[in-house]
Amino acid sequence: MPGNRYFIGVDLGGTNIRAAAVSPEGDIHIRRRAATGPDDGYKAVVGRIVSAIESIVEEAGAKPVSVGLASPGAINFDRGIIVRSPNFPGWRNIPLSGDVEKAVGIPVTLENDANSAAIGEGWLGVAKGWSDYLVFTLGTGVGGGIMMDGKIWHGPTGMGGEVGHLMVEPGGRTCGCGSRGCLETYSSATGVKQSARERFPAPGAQWLKEASHGLEDNIGAKMVAEGAAMGDRLCVEVLNDAGMYLGRAIAQATLLLDITRYAFAGGMSPALPLMENAIRKEAFASAYTLKGKELYLRMAILGDDAGLLGAVRVAMRADGNNP
Amino acid sequence: MPGNRYFIGVDLGGTNIRAAAVSPEGDIHIRRRAATGPDDGYKAVVGRIVSAIESIVEEAGAKPVSVGLASPGAINFDRGIIVRSPNFPGWRNIPLSGDVEKAVGIPVTLENDANSAAIGEGWLGVAKGWSDYLVFTLGTGVGGGIMMDGKIWHGPTGMGGEVGHLMVEPGGRTCGCGSRGCLETYSSATGVKQSARERFPAPGAQWLKEASHGLEDNIGAKMVAEGAAMGDRLCVEVLNDAGMYLGRAIAQATLLLDITRYAFAGGMSPALPLMENAIRKEAFASAYTLKGKELYLRMAILGDDAGLLGAVRVAMRADGNNP
Repeated sequence: MPGNRYFIGVDLGGTNIRAAAVSPEGDIHIRRRAATGPDDGYKAVVGRIVSAIESIVEEAGAKPVSVGLASPGAINFDRGIIVRSPNFPGWRNIPLSGDVEKAVGIPVTLENDANSAAIGEGWLGVAKGWSDYLVFTLGTGVGGGIMMDGKIWHGPTGMGGEVGHLMVEPGGRTCGCGSRGCLETYSSATGVKQSARERFPAPGAQWLKEASHGLEDNIGAKMVAEGAAMGDRLCVEVLNDAGMYLGRAIAQATLLLDITRYAFAGGMSPALPLMENAIRKEAFASAYTLKGKELYLRMAILGDDAGLLGAVRVAMRADGNNP
Repeated sequence: MPGNRYFIGVDLGGTNIRAAAVSPEGDIHIRRRAATGPDDGYKAVVGRIVSAIESIVEEAGAKPVSVGLASPGAINFDRGIIVRSPNFPGWRNIPLSGDVEKAVGIPVTLENDANSAAIGEGWLGVAKGWSDYLVFTLGTGVGGGIMMDGKIWHGPTGMGGEVGHLMVEPGGRTCGCGSRGCLETYSSATGVKQSARERFPAPGAQWLKEASHGLEDNIGAKMVAEGAAMGDRLCVEVLNDAGMYLGRAIAQATLLLDITRYAFAGGMSPALPLMENAIRKEAFASAYTLKGKELYLRMAILGDDAGLLGAVRVAMRADGNNP
């Protein structure tokens, strides 16, 4: 660790905890990882986060300035609690950052994971230099972080940026949130998988049938992206649909917020080039305010480190280190 | 005019200019009005605004601190110009506030008319005490002003808040903006009129047939609202549709921005009670983040003065008078 002054970033996810020592310049020096699962009790998760932090502190030989924590779920920022989290169904009004802070004796800041990814990409990633943008996290679901005038928009109750649940197809697919036609039912990895499986019995599904060894259950979003990259028409159509719906959501965000810069993170983001034409076509057709403007669509570049780095950025700002 | 310190608010509209002397407390003292039309040349409009201001100054016997100007159209706030305005089709990149300022020798601030109405309602109207809200202006079209954390959101190019063009019905009615299924094609006075006229030939249109003396061309949004208030089923259905689409737009704004407070201004706003159930039903069905929250739907109360008062508020803030 060059220099004494450093921060620790922790990204709490549904399958693992990723933690690291990060310099004020954003260089990652010491990494830790631990597993998590939906059945994990709150205390077990706190324990694993605390262990990861303590282990980093030990190796670094010095305490960090502070810890930045990224967590999935709805956060009440005034009270510093996680109201609920889709990845930990049992959690309700959890004072996670406070509990970690007490255990390690180091200040801890809290931010939502999708927001952290957006902040991270703005600090060191594809959105560097952008002041108004939206980052879609395309994974099992679709999350988002909205940056306006250089600040993440939390909203009055911390529930802003729920782009995955924008209605893009009235009366469409049933979503886990209880609504219908939400973006994430079409443009997440899960949505793309469903679109492909629905077309599996079609005569044109020869490529998918071979790639999946004839087993519909083997089809996944990655396979669809591979097929589309090779020009398979059915796979291209599936990703066109996913892109069209992303374009529709982008049009809504553009009309409301005048945002023209969008980045895509998460497991589905490498498929952006395969969806880009469909996104552009629908966004320009649906948002007249885009006319004559450049619409930026970019793949995020920090990968799995975006959330962790964004969390550190939040910690740095709380520390007054805000250039 | 009690006290010497006052402001002048000017609301430039498609059919008239409304100007008034306004005290720092928001009391209106001297009013002026002049006609405008789509064929008005830019110089003629500037001349009428300048005359109105000079006439107020003369009656007041003293110059105002500054002038706040509300104008329809897309505004480039960095450069202080109106990029284009739907009400004055010939206008392109017009330095309106600068030209008025030069002519009257008083500082002039510029704000969009829908934003001004939102600011006015927040200062002295229904949104007093609200920090995060959206005001829909339901008139010939549908406009909007988005207030976030006490500040109007202009967006990077001044085109934020275009709620009238949110897609609420994919493949739906063709809109003047070039897109299809925009909110304003359904929930503006024009949209409601169209919905009623489309149903005019139906057997259930007896009330409308009587009220319009059998002439489809006589049907307007106000007539539909009257019919709905009297319980006429077809008119009720038409307003339910308009409300449902408003609910869909509200869901989008709620999901993106976590805003739960909405006010309705403009000629259609008195019909809010007739649309409210449909708005609520669709908004709650389409935005899971509303669950367990109170959704505020309120009629604006400043009427035609909202824009003028909002413009004054902007002028006051520019003057540093920001409590």
